[in-house]
Amino acid sequence: MKFSIERAVLLKAVAQAQSVVERRNTIPILANVLIEAEGADVMFRATDLDIEVVDKAPAMVERAGATTVSAVTLHEIVRKLPDGAMVTLSEEAGAGRLVVQAGRSMFNLATLPQDDFPVMASSEYASGFTAPAPVLRRLFDKSKFAISTEETRYYLNGVYMHVAEGEDGRVLRCVATDGHRLARIDAPLPEGAEDMPGVIVPRKTVGELRKLLDDDELEVQVSVSETKVRFATPQITLTSKVIDGTFPDYSRVIPMNNTRRLEVDASEFAKAVDRVATVSSERSRAVKLSLDEDRLILSVNAPDSGAAEEELAVAYGDERLEIGFNAKYLLEIASQVDRENAVFLFNSSGDPTLMREGNDQSAVYVVMPMRV
Amino acid sequence: MKFSIERAVLLKAVAQAQSVVERRNTIPILANVLIEAEGADVMFRATDLDIEVVDKAPAMVERAGATTVSAVTLHEIVRKLPDGAMVTLSEEAGAGRLVVQAGRSMFNLATLPQDDFPVMASSEYASGFTAPAPVLRRLFDKSKFAISTEETRYYLNGVYMHVAEGEDGRVLRCVATDGHRLARIDAPLPEGAEDMPGVIVPRKTVGELRKLLDDDELEVQVSVSETKVRFATPQITLTSKVIDGTFPDYSRVIPMNNTRRLEVDASEFAKAVDRVATVSSERSRAVKLSLDEDRLILSVNAPDSGAAEEELAVAYGDERLEIGFNAKYLLEIASQVDRENAVFLFNSSGDPTLMREGNDQSAVYVVMPMRV
Repeated sequence: MKFSIERAVLLKAVAQAQSVVERRNTIPILANVLIEAEGADVMFRATDLDIEVVDKAPAMVERAGATTVSAVTLHEIVRKLPDGAMVTLSEEAGAGRLVVQAGRSMFNLATLPQDDFPVMASSEYASGFTAPAPVLRRLFDKSKFAISTEETRYYLNGVYMHVAEGEDGRVLRCVATDGHRLARIDAPLPEGAEDMPGVIVPRKTVGELRKLLDDDELEVQVSVSETKVRFATPQITLTSKVIDGTFPDYSRVIPMNNTRRLEVDASEFAKAVDRVATVSSERSRAVKLSLDEDRLILSVNAPDSGAAEEELAVAYGDERLEIGFNAKYLLEIASQVDRENAVFLFNSSGDPTLMREGNDQSAVYVVMPMRV
Repeated sequence: MKFSIERAVLLKAVAQAQSVVERRNTIPILANVLIEAEGADVMFRATDLDIEVVDKAPAMVERAGATTVSAVTLHEIVRKLPDGAMVTLSEEAGAGRLVVQAGRSMFNLATLPQDDFPVMASSEYASGFTAPAPVLRRLFDKSKFAISTEETRYYLNGVYMHVAEGEDGRVLRCVATDGHRLARIDAPLPEGAEDMPGVIVPRKTVGELRKLLDDDELEVQVSVSETKVRFATPQITLTSKVIDGTFPDYSRVIPMNNTRRLEVDASEFAKAVDRVATVSSERSRAVKLSLDEDRLILSVNAPDSGAAEEELAVAYGDERLEIGFNAKYLLEIASQVDRENAVFLFNSSGDPTLMREGNDQSAVYVVMPMRV
């Protein structure tokens, strides 16, 4: 194998590979990236056995071939090479060493045979559709903060992507929850997605997927089966197992009849919550919201360290209400609001509260109150 | 006590205080900052019993008085207040609560009596002098990387500031070493420093001192006794115990007769060292320098992961030499060079090597070789 490739192109491909590779590996070859050179392209493939990423990069291939080498070491080397450098990678058949050369630098890296590299079995996908990168970005970016980290409830350790009945017909929907808060984000249903089985996309896959979605102009090909999901751009293909479990029926959690409406500047609200939470002990960061005619008082009372109070001018016309929340949860949902005011809909101090951006029904958040 | 103060002024004073305070404290009052309001100034005082910092800030004092409150909590609150805010701090005598008010935010913090706050005993200083901030900054910035972290050799856990005999007469000198590398930085001897006892300024004090030295125009008043050192600007006074030990006779370590001279672009050299070190295992990051007529080859050989080699064009006219160094040490000393080329003076592959910036004798570094 021998090929030359631009440093910037190589860096992008290897960065994606080393990010999928797990740092602590008992199987040595899982630390490696599989490099396959043929024609005018080189494929860089990395896996942790649950996720596989393949980057296709243009290169000048002098001699076709394949080998595997430490993804982390190769990434570190390429990162440190000067910008604009041309990098040559070559391996003599059977030598067991990959030579990386750029300018006056030469590296000689231990390889493992490409035959030992576990390539993910290809599957039949039940459903396939195309979606613009910004649409997928919004679906996952606005829901992922609510993914649970509790390993015992493994079926909550991801974003549930499925087809659902929205206000105005069927939608592509992403939902995540950890039992304390929930995010439900809708997008227009893409053509071809109608029969898509609902899948729970694991947290790590959501993170890796994010790197494919930066380009606003990109159309992403999504393929879904009962066990796998695949996201493909012209350069990168990300394939992932989905979580083998049943996502709970979240619709029962979303309050439909909350009528007490608070409208508030999301950024002002978040800053005030952050400030009053300063005095509370780390454990129970409870913030009390006291609502009265167009007035919101945020307060925290931490017996050992102190108390804090802040008043905000808001739009509220219902009867007086006192309700407590975890400060971190309030901050997280308030930070999802980027265009309009945050609208909170309360019922009583013991019931789940709904939050959305203005009157936009396509992004809805639920947060459970806590006793204060 | 009651006073109003600008948020920016308060933030600066409290930031300095909370940085001196130790995070884990068995004595509760050591987590607090002592606030004393009188006349047109407020003093903010914090200590870890080894270092004491006092910030004097202008304020509108309505009612003189003093109290102590958690430095970390007060800092967090002030940091989160909006820029440009006017902050009022007040305590009713005997109430045991400090009220912090800004705009519509109000905080109520637990206090501890000011009488319990340990104020560092004032001392007689044997010697005092004034030095421009940039001079002190250079002395400590260029030496501190070599401070030892080994607690058993506590007398190396700081920078040794003393008066010494330089090339052209007496100088103010800072030296730090951990036995593997050494930095020796000289500055013209300020008036009044002639009889200064040599003191070992602890690592934490060096870090805190750095924050006083950002203003190029500032003259810093330095006072030194056998047991303490004090750095004072018009706003801030930093007093610190010095390390009670004897700094070793470093002059024996500095090679005087190294004649093999290598001159190299410091930045190119550092980047090349960083690149070849990539393949080595974390433990023994040994880089081999092979010198020949105007040519330097840097190489690393790590049996398990690979090998790396890079050639640099340099100025070298002596006989062939191979010598090994810890990559981290080479990187650190090369990064001290900012104006000219790095000049290395070697003897043999087993002897300490000297590095300096061009022909400048006022900053000299020594690094021990390692077997490769």
